[in-house]
Amino acid sequence: MSLVTQQSDPTGLHRVVDDRPVLPQAAERLDTRRELWPDEVRVRVERLNLDAASFRQLEQEHGGDGAAVRDAVLGIVAARGKMQNPVTGSGGMLIGTVEEVGPASPLGLVPGQRIATLVSLTLTPLLITDGLARWDGRSEQVPCDGHAVLFGRSIAAPLPEDLPDALSLAVMDVCGAPALTERVVRGYDRPTVAVVGGAGKSGSLSLVAARAAGAGRTIGVVPTRAEAEVLTRAGIADAVAVADARDPVALRAAVGEAGGPADVTVVCVDVPGCEGGAVLATRDGGTVVFFSMATSFSAAALGAEGLAADVTMLVGNGYVPGHAELALDLLRRTPALRALFEQRVGG
Amino acid sequence: MSLVTQQSDPTGLHRVVDDRPVLPQAAERLDTRRELWPDEVRVRVERLNLDAASFRQLEQEHGGDGAAVRDAVLGIVAARGKMQNPVTGSGGMLIGTVEEVGPASPLGLVPGQRIATLVSLTLTPLLITDGLARWDGRSEQVPCDGHAVLFGRSIAAPLPEDLPDALSLAVMDVCGAPALTERVVRGYDRPTVAVVGGAGKSGSLSLVAARAAGAGRTIGVVPTRAEAEVLTRAGIADAVAVADARDPVALRAAVGEAGGPADVTVVCVDVPGCEGGAVLATRDGGTVVFFSMATSFSAAALGAEGLAADVTMLVGNGYVPGHAELALDLLRRTPALRALFEQRVGG
Repeated sequence: MSLVTQQSDPTGLHRVVDDRPVLPQAAERLDTRRELWPDEVRVRVERLNLDAASFRQLEQEHGGDGAAVRDAVLGIVAARGKMQNPVTGSGGMLIGTVEEVGPASPLGLVPGQRIATLVSLTLTPLLITDGLARWDGRSEQVPCDGHAVLFGRSIAAPLPEDLPDALSLAVMDVCGAPALTERVVRGYDRPTVAVVGGAGKSGSLSLVAARAAGAGRTIGVVPTRAEAEVLTRAGIADAVAVADARDPVALRAAVGEAGGPADVTVVCVDVPGCEGGAVLATRDGGTVVFFSMATSFSAAALGAEGLAADVTMLVGNGYVPGHAELALDLLRRTPALRALFEQRVGG
Repeated sequence: MSLVTQQSDPTGLHRVVDDRPVLPQAAERLDTRRELWPDEVRVRVERLNLDAASFRQLEQEHGGDGAAVRDAVLGIVAARGKMQNPVTGSGGMLIGTVEEVGPASPLGLVPGQRIATLVSLTLTPLLITDGLARWDGRSEQVPCDGHAVLFGRSIAAPLPEDLPDALSLAVMDVCGAPALTERVVRGYDRPTVAVVGGAGKSGSLSLVAARAAGAGRTIGVVPTRAEAEVLTRAGIADAVAVADARDPVALRAAVGEAGGPADVTVVCVDVPGCEGGAVLATRDGGTVVFFSMATSFSAAALGAEGLAADVTMLVGNGYVPGHAELALDLLRRTPALRALFEQRVGG
């Protein structure tokens, strides 16, 4: 049984060709036909940015043989109609130019626009037509010709002309964190905001977003003195604290000494075991936002209950309307933040 | 190095005897001494209620040999100073009588009160003194003599005199769900509320809580026609829908036909893979509350992003102040809900 139907669905269900009714991200295979359903957009692809974990896995599997890595990516995309590493489950994003816009597309795109897709490659129909001939298989940046399809509920953002692509992509990659941080911070009156992992990409953006949204005090928590120096020099946090976020007692103490407990705690470090400390660092009535994919749902739920902590805990949704524009704007308006990002992307 | 110090900590850190600074729940071993720190309470234990998953594991490991199961529980509690199954990681709760209240305890308990502990046995210091002589090792209900200790931040609720213990315990076990549902529903104006798993314990309580909190429409979602009949007869939902919650398309359709999409979706079913459907069943600007311990953090976060869904996703914190009283009150005021619970506990 094929689920391809005449009617399109904003989630892209109509392009799933699996036997089971699953969403495109969970699908084994997507339909990559050029012809658009009325609410779709076709993009001429210029470059794929593979997810770092995915690229690392492929590189290791093939012992660093670039040609073999290239063949593996070509094989995956040919078999699945999307770039989703079957081992890591992850994809990446792409850059391209809008080629055709269906009459019912709600995305507001126009042909000729250069865009980045902000939904994952794991759910984006993709057809490669150049055999990735310009890629040596040795970097996550993949020059590519072909087409991709965006659905009614996809997300894409125009690439700013005033910023280098690499810088824009680095910001867009984590733009959900500052957007949700801003929204949560606005729900409090001049709150104290602690960002765990404050020197990283999503963390530094979240610190700047918190301040812009009216935080009374921002605290950046980092694991090492070296990172503390970088963050202190950047001046984007009112206080900088050094603590191992996996040690709940140390995290509570560090945030406390820096002016806490926090009304809002934002967790941006990709290490497991930070749930208890984040809860303990937050005052009753406060909110913890978990952006780390290493977060354990049950550790957060049972941890807060075990501490009788009346805190609201949010799953960090990577999508908030306007998130890319907000994050790019924070970068433009904050030279120290831009400098941090430029160091990271080598820009 | 022992972390036992003269100063007590409301989280119970002062009773952790591990070499690493961990919270009591993560600790290998707790100090069970009778003497209280000033903010503690000692309880004379009457009965343990082992977590169902933990009891099942022990029963299987010992081939249903009750004496061996009893010895295993005695062994765990003797070794760890708490009842935390090393395989499942889970504990349970206990019933007892308040024996001594430290002068600085904030819990408001008085000696002689019969209480149930609402924090897990996994973080409660416990010393068994009767060798569990009255327990045959064949049921989760364990008659027990000994003492347990509550910390400054523990939670305990007096057992109501107007309800059978078993009924009160069944309600208290899931009382976080209706309490958080009530709080979320109050944040909307006459919202449509869908409860996935609406015929279960936490689900039925959440439906009643949603209605009491001003929901405009409540939808109970259940997996089978048999459960739909039970829920329809109980009359505690405005609409009842049948759907496999793991099928996102089916769940969206079922909630839609029943009057959705929902402003608030509450997930109370303990099966993996319900994240996408819950997000799809919820309108933009809505909230999903995940109470199922089978929830995958990354599936929720990436799923919502992949669907460009502007929904707030909450980790269901089992603790909300006043949660036990609220849930017991809903049960008293709603005969149909009480009947559902009585069927379940055989009361």
